[in-house]
Amino acid sequence: MRNIMIEIEYDGTNYSGWQIQQNAPSIQEEIAKALKKVTGEEITTHGSGRTDAGVHAQGQVASFQLHSKIPAERISFALNGKLPRDITILEAKEMPEDFHARYSAIGKRYGYCIMNNTHGSALLRNYCYHVPYKLDLQKMKQASETLLGTHDFKGFMASGSQVKSTVRRIDEINFDTQGSQIWITMQGNGFLYKMVRIIVGSLVGIGTGKIKEEALQNILETQNRRVAVKTAPAQGLYLQKVFYPLTHQGHCIII
Amino acid sequence: MRNIMIEIEYDGTNYSGWQIQQNAPSIQEEIAKALKKVTGEEITTHGSGRTDAGVHAQGQVASFQLHSKIPAERISFALNGKLPRDITILEAKEMPEDFHARYSAIGKRYGYCIMNNTHGSALLRNYCYHVPYKLDLQKMKQASETLLGTHDFKGFMASGSQVKSTVRRIDEINFDTQGSQIWITMQGNGFLYKMVRIIVGSLVGIGTGKIKEEALQNILETQNRRVAVKTAPAQGLYLQKVFYPLTHQGHCIII
Repeated sequence: MRNIMIEIEYDGTNYSGWQIQQNAPSIQEEIAKALKKVTGEEITTHGSGRTDAGVHAQGQVASFQLHSKIPAERISFALNGKLPRDITILEAKEMPEDFHARYSAIGKRYGYCIMNNTHGSALLRNYCYHVPYKLDLQKMKQASETLLGTHDFKGFMASGSQVKSTVRRIDEINFDTQGSQIWITMQGNGFLYKMVRIIVGSLVGIGTGKIKEEALQNILETQNRRVAVKTAPAQGLYLQKVFYPLTHQGHCIII
Repeated sequence: MRNIMIEIEYDGTNYSGWQIQQNAPSIQEEIAKALKKVTGEEITTHGSGRTDAGVHAQGQVASFQLHSKIPAERISFALNGKLPRDITILEAKEMPEDFHARYSAIGKRYGYCIMNNTHGSALLRNYCYHVPYKLDLQKMKQASETLLGTHDFKGFMASGSQVKSTVRRIDEINFDTQGSQIWITMQGNGFLYKMVRIIVGSLVGIGTGKIKEEALQNILETQNRRVAVKTAPAQGLYLQKVFYPLTHQGHCIII
């Protein structure tokens, strides 16, 4: 059996999320259908993690076992020919047999787009979170530093998820302003359920003055969101990159 | 009667174009419906010009006569509350009575987005033209200079349009590369039917080597596209700005 990794861009607007589910369109199902058409095989892909309804990806990664002898460099072209236009395979690579998109991952980068203007944007309605209030970016940046490093992020996790540990490490939180757009980028070893959107919601609350700067420290310490934090909406969120150890960078090792 | 100018952003994906037509959704119709809901009046808006199905706008301008006493600065909020999310009124201004979005216009700027990579982009499928071939940007830039200035652009006009004169002036053609995206921006005193898309199609043909650089000069001279120029698709095109004389910049002149 061959072990294949694919890197995927998708527009999450019309999907209920990454994960296959009954009676709801998912990215994973569309990819399984395309793989079936291309190879004739029933293939289960393993994503690096789930993304929620409306969340986008610029670099989701999935891995799967394949019998077919189709050359790795043809897989992306073949799948893109069968996939709907809101899902694009950016790359496909032959991987060592122990590679697994989820278990081998050592980090992730998410981007979040805020449209900070009066009327929002018709063109970006499904790709940004419209915040019509003035944001104090300096305050948001300063507050975000509290979150850097290794912490128990239980207070920043939405209910409905079962994980062994709620300790995560955030290596970087960056702010980048382009016109009316504010991009918040976060990189870390992993993120809990809705953690990025709850962090962005908190930072926006701090930026508008609704929430005090100290709130983040309190949530970390008490593991409890006592302040009213709005979870930022799905459409502003992008899974940008999944990181793997150097041995799993996929240098076309044919096995 | 008051004379109002609105500046409009829209996502053209789900519309048959700016202009009202029977049995097909149009931006103009949606705005008329929203104006009816807000003011109770049957209002005909005059756009600065039409845009085709799938073409976007970041700064379309329309003007209309209004009885209602609603303050100009409330009009955008009121309309946005009634409009579908893919149309946004960016601004509304009280104008002198002789202002007309079409007849007062002295220039326009269009942007065109090319996605120049192997697999295209799921997120930008409706917002860029995917060109998977290597483009010689230097050649394209050089060729575009032929078009600068005042010329008879009849050879760059699609059939199906009645205009008195096919002479237009192009003041600027700019190329801006951002990652895999190439933005071609054109500014001039006006553009003929599908002229921007035919120019972009010609430039892409030159960039891939399918068309000779001299072709543009030939089309200008003969007013005839004898070479096979592909009209670039609608979804890459954005009406970015409409220019008016200084006296019509709309400094809230209340009449």
